[in-house]
Amino acid sequence: MAKKIKGIGASSGIALAKVYILDEHPIVIPTSKAKDVKEELTNITESIAKAKKDLENLQMIAKEKLGEEKAAIFEAHASILEDPAMAEEFTALVNDKNYNAASAIHEVANKYIEMFGSMDDDYFKERAADIKDVTERLIRYVLKLPVLDLAAISEEVIIIAEDLTPSQTAQLNPTFVKGFACNVGGRTSHAAIMARSLEIPAVLGLKTVLKDVKEGDTIAIDGVTGEVEINPSNKDEWNDKAKKFLEEKAELEQFRTKKTVTKDGYDKFILEGNIGSPKDVAAVLENGGEGVGLFRSEFLYMDNDHFPTEEEQFEAYKKVVTDMNGKLTVIRTLDIGGDKKLSYFKFPEEMNPFLGYRAIRFTLDRKDIFKEQIRALLRASAFGPVGIMFPMIATVDEFLAAKNFTLDCKAELEKEGVKVGKDLEIGMMVEIPAAAVNADNFAKHADFFSVGTNDLIQYSMAADRMSENVTYLYQPFNPSILRLLKLTIDGAHKHGRWAGMCGEMAGEPDAVPLLMGLGLDAYSMSATSILKARSIMSKLTLKETQELVAKALECETSEQVLKLVHDLMKDK
Amino acid sequence: MAKKIKGIGASSGIALAKVYILDEHPIVIPTSKAKDVKEELTNITESIAKAKKDLENLQMIAKEKLGEEKAAIFEAHASILEDPAMAEEFTALVNDKNYNAASAIHEVANKYIEMFGSMDDDYFKERAADIKDVTERLIRYVLKLPVLDLAAISEEVIIIAEDLTPSQTAQLNPTFVKGFACNVGGRTSHAAIMARSLEIPAVLGLKTVLKDVKEGDTIAIDGVTGEVEINPSNKDEWNDKAKKFLEEKAELEQFRTKKTVTKDGYDKFILEGNIGSPKDVAAVLENGGEGVGLFRSEFLYMDNDHFPTEEEQFEAYKKVVTDMNGKLTVIRTLDIGGDKKLSYFKFPEEMNPFLGYRAIRFTLDRKDIFKEQIRALLRASAFGPVGIMFPMIATVDEFLAAKNFTLDCKAELEKEGVKVGKDLEIGMMVEIPAAAVNADNFAKHADFFSVGTNDLIQYSMAADRMSENVTYLYQPFNPSILRLLKLTIDGAHKHGRWAGMCGEMAGEPDAVPLLMGLGLDAYSMSATSILKARSIMSKLTLKETQELVAKALECETSEQVLKLVHDLMKDK
Repeated sequence: MAKKIKGIGASSGIALAKVYILDEHPIVIPTSKAKDVKEELTNITESIAKAKKDLENLQMIAKEKLGEEKAAIFEAHASILEDPAMAEEFTALVNDKNYNAASAIHEVANKYIEMFGSMDDDYFKERAADIKDVTERLIRYVLKLPVLDLAAISEEVIIIAEDLTPSQTAQLNPTFVKGFACNVGGRTSHAAIMARSLEIPAVLGLKTVLKDVKEGDTIAIDGVTGEVEINPSNKDEWNDKAKKFLEEKAELEQFRTKKTVTKDGYDKFILEGNIGSPKDVAAVLENGGEGVGLFRSEFLYMDNDHFPTEEEQFEAYKKVVTDMNGKLTVIRTLDIGGDKKLSYFKFPEEMNPFLGYRAIRFTLDRKDIFKEQIRALLRASAFGPVGIMFPMIATVDEFLAAKNFTLDCKAELEKEGVKVGKDLEIGMMVEIPAAAVNADNFAKHADFFSVGTNDLIQYSMAADRMSENVTYLYQPFNPSILRLLKLTIDGAHKHGRWAGMCGEMAGEPDAVPLLMGLGLDAYSMSATSILKARSIMSKLTLKETQELVAKALECETSEQVLKLVHDLMKDK
Repeated sequence: MAKKIKGIGASSGIALAKVYILDEHPIVIPTSKAKDVKEELTNITESIAKAKKDLENLQMIAKEKLGEEKAAIFEAHASILEDPAMAEEFTALVNDKNYNAASAIHEVANKYIEMFGSMDDDYFKERAADIKDVTERLIRYVLKLPVLDLAAISEEVIIIAEDLTPSQTAQLNPTFVKGFACNVGGRTSHAAIMARSLEIPAVLGLKTVLKDVKEGDTIAIDGVTGEVEINPSNKDEWNDKAKKFLEEKAELEQFRTKKTVTKDGYDKFILEGNIGSPKDVAAVLENGGEGVGLFRSEFLYMDNDHFPTEEEQFEAYKKVVTDMNGKLTVIRTLDIGGDKKLSYFKFPEEMNPFLGYRAIRFTLDRKDIFKEQIRALLRASAFGPVGIMFPMIATVDEFLAAKNFTLDCKAELEKEGVKVGKDLEIGMMVEIPAAAVNADNFAKHADFFSVGTNDLIQYSMAADRMSENVTYLYQPFNPSILRLLKLTIDGAHKHGRWAGMCGEMAGEPDAVPLLMGLGLDAYSMSATSILKARSIMSKLTLKETQELVAKALECETSEQVLKLVHDLMKDK
């Protein structure tokens, strides 16, 4: 019997093949106390050695199949195993509290997994997945459980699993593994990122797929829409879909080296990439990115046991700016607090952390910490065009305080004889409704705006998008949001500034026509969305997008706006 | 040595007199286990009887001095003592856990005090104070500690205390007690409300006053500004202030029966009162209120052990509507969730409750509960003009869902032969930025708007005003907020609707000129602010307030806006 389910399209492509059910022996952590402390500690040390050897092998395989950048993940994994602080925590639990080896590793790992996993930030959710991947391997060795070898698969299959770890994904051989479908995960999981590099279709977040299939079933997956059909009744339909996908892919391919230009020849829109660390630059450039519209500086702070020094930060910023080779890099200053915590700094307990002490509110209060970052950013600006961007600005007073502080740091550096770039721009995120409504006033002082749609929508609707009872209010296409975008963009243009967007909405195919019509200048998105956006732009005239927006601004609901967009795009 | 400190002006007037330090023996709750369970239980029963007798006496005194309405508080206190559920909780702790009588009462009381006290709602904070007042009296009897008699004071004094309970305030004799100054409390404490009825000046929330004074000191207090001077160096200055206050009071007095009209004769602005329960209507009418702009229906739900039935609600709404005698009463539907919890219903745990499942989001999800309220409101509308107002509306879809549900209930009632008022209006709170920005669309469907400034400011600035690190962002006069108000008011007028305000800002003297210029139609505030607002309006022409607003909308900061207002009002 055919059965359809739906998940998140995480790596594009269509596949149809026999299922390969990845049903690992679940790990059961023994609760017994350590009988022989020394033996437990030796077991940990030996298992770490075995796991490290695995990771070295995986890194070699990955380098060959996925390239140097993607293989670096296993270096990061190895560094988790090599972390002396973590090893000390294992040892302490065994020594002081008589934990057995597996439960010591489990408890320490869980602490970190929970910390990173609870953050509303894909980058840090992935840190949680990394730690889980590494420590599970370690625990398997400690408990003498088999460690699976996916590289051995030698017939055409689609893998069905609860989740695929980065180490498992790296082993997949695209000749035989036609795709995978998992209960958990999303577009930014490592598994998804690797699948896209391997060009294997993947659907994640399916919740029930492992329960829905049985040995011998056939499955069809659509890595774009997230649609999955078990034992599909109409295989021809799936084969047609696959053909159409490959045609569209070939069409997008031609946009990799093309300029961004509308159907009527407007060529001032810029398509950029969002990045979380220097290693993400490669993908932006490969996909024809014309800049970095958002470099989240948090990774320097969160993957760390201390506030990063000016020097540590400078090296990272300089690398990105240099690699971008003359294209603008917009770097956001520390956006910590809210749900993003640091292991080495205690934020105050707040009833509503999203409405609390975070981002610019924290850094303006802690100028000592802010200064290290601003100096590093200013120094990096000597190596190419840099935009310094302040997050969570609500009032003109705040922006001026941050800007003036930056200018003071600049004067100080110049007095010290340190070079600062001439092309430096100082701008701000527009992610708080008050900033959008007051944009023309901000534009007197800010060189640019970049709209953070996730937060802007969340605050405008007064609805935490992580709170499942109110997710229905996360409405990027609500006329209210479009009106706030209009105020922001018009405000920027009134004073000759540019307006960008670095939230999820910028790369959303349904949003691009509206954003064009609103006059948004810079579109920063995940690297893999760039070609599609460029293709959409090439099919639309400015005039028709402006007419679309005029109508959309008068709509009452999201549904009405989306219908207008779909009507316009129907024949494109 | 003179010393100045500052608190919250809680009851207006100026006083200068000797201090009377109210230094009660602090209650120390014994930690010992009950020796004789039966004896402890008898002690509780006997103490409850004594405390009840006190409350009966207090009610008689209060009725004479403060009138029936104010005296009702002691009936409410008596009902706390009579609550069988609470008594059962005392008994259970003594019987099952061997608590002594005082600690059992203390533990049970604290549970309720913490529950109510943690809510960001003055009405419920006062419930906490009531329970504290009653149970402290009870514990004093249980521990055989003296219970103070303030009625015995017979020389001119200003009372200095940590806090004054309602029962203590009710005993004060204005002939001798010239005022009081407390470490804790605010404008909406019962002590403040009673002080205003007794016309005794009071300054609360002084934090250190009890520590700052010693026996024999003289103290001067300003119940308007909250300024306090201990052993003032310049007594003449204080006497001048007192004189000026009485002059202004006499001036305001004439506005009690006057119409609300601007200097140039515009007489369409309406000044209304906010109320929390039917007993608050009297104060609104006494102060010349032209309607009730906000009746918070929560008291019916929170002072209860079950969702109130249609019948229970109907009686309360009907009483208010009848008492308002033809003037409009706007009743807000259940605004629960966020920080407002119910003892008999478990809300989901959320990371950011202010951005979560609350108010209309809850009632649209729980139509069973909503229906009881809507039917009660519709039935009450047969007794006078009623506005039904939905809180926390973010999208047009939500408003239409709530409105259509109301119309369905109306049709159902009419089919049952139950009368519904002809003057019924169905409107909404504008307290979410998305609603303000989209106001013209909402105005196609809503009969009226009422701006809730506390929430609107909090969401627009993305700053929880309860979180002390970001209170600086609570800026009612920020140009962003004024622009959102303009969008709201203009949106209403575009479709011939009226726009009101029921947040704290409506009665703020600095805000009134701006709101007039913006064209706000209805101003709902605490009853005691009405005369002042009417006086301000009488001194301003529409034209000068419109000019003020035109300039204010172009300001960059709150400070600039406030300066414009102060410049205009300087010579009024």
